[in-house]
Amino acid sequence: MTTMTSTVSLSQQALLDYWLGHRVLTRRTIEAFPDEALFSFKPTSTLRSFGEMMLEVVGMIEPTLAYLRSGEWTPTMERFEDVRSKTALLAAWDEATRRLMDEWTSVPSERVWAVVPPLPHLVAVPYLIDNEVHHRAQGFVYLRLLEIEPPAFYER
Amino acid sequence: MTTMTSTVSLSQQALLDYWLGHRVLTRRTIEAFPDEALFSFKPTSTLRSFGEMMLEVVGMIEPTLAYLRSGEWTPTMERFEDVRSKTALLAAWDEATRRLMDEWTSVPSERVWAVVPPLPHLVAVPYLIDNEVHHRAQGFVYLRLLEIEPPAFYER
Repeated sequence: MTTMTSTVSLSQQALLDYWLGHRVLTRRTIEAFPDEALFSFKPTSTLRSFGEMMLEVVGMIEPTLAYLRSGEWTPTMERFEDVRSKTALLAAWDEATRRLMDEWTSVPSERVWAVVPPLPHLVAVPYLIDNEVHHRAQGFVYLRLLEIEPPAFYER
Repeated sequence: MTTMTSTVSLSQQALLDYWLGHRVLTRRTIEAFPDEALFSFKPTSTLRSFGEMMLEVVGMIEPTLAYLRSGEWTPTMERFEDVRSKTALLAAWDEATRRLMDEWTSVPSERVWAVVPPLPHLVAVPYLIDNEVHHRAQGFVYLRLLEIEPPAFYER
């Protein structure tokens, strides 16, 4: 087997745009939920509501950005106890998007593919995107169970 | 707003390893399904079985690799009509993993973040990974509905 020495390069802006494209689709998925189902509907008792999963996704952004900038991991996620409606969740979502857009230029490019200490084999930015895609996809199933058509996966 | 000119670089091998890490987790998810549920269980009539979704994921690899190598898109996905059991799906999965590992060195690094013509705003390799994460996450919900604990998301 050949040892690969090739390097994949992309602009840091392109990676942000890619992430923001996912965020647009996830926001559309939140919007598709009926307000009363967002924090209460669970297909089975071992699953969380879509609203709770989205708060996890929102809450990981700030500590990860702080780690990428400083190299220090402070494992305190924001709690969002009072976010229990679609309006409040969308406001928290938009605030996280604003922070991401504002703070992205201060993330050193060599840290974007960096590993976060508590998750030693996972890389920070791809993990956040994957985690968002993962929970959004679960929301797609929830929407189908609620007889609502999810947004198109390939539109960003 | 500052214009970003930074570039994110990672080795092509690291990106392959990242993808293969996802493939290990997805394979574990397939294995967690009872054989009789894999191609028959649907939480509601508007959803596909997990087996069918995984065949979509498997079938996209070869045409995408061919496009990345040649620059030509031949939109013929393999059909896998005869793959209707866990054993057969896992064999198709492993064959696709082998092809990916064999052919990855022949993909020019500048094409890894390239756009595929029929999906003009999506990039090939990240899209394949996202699509796999998306459908695997739906499988996690299916498993919960079948009262089976899915594998840990953060283990690769």
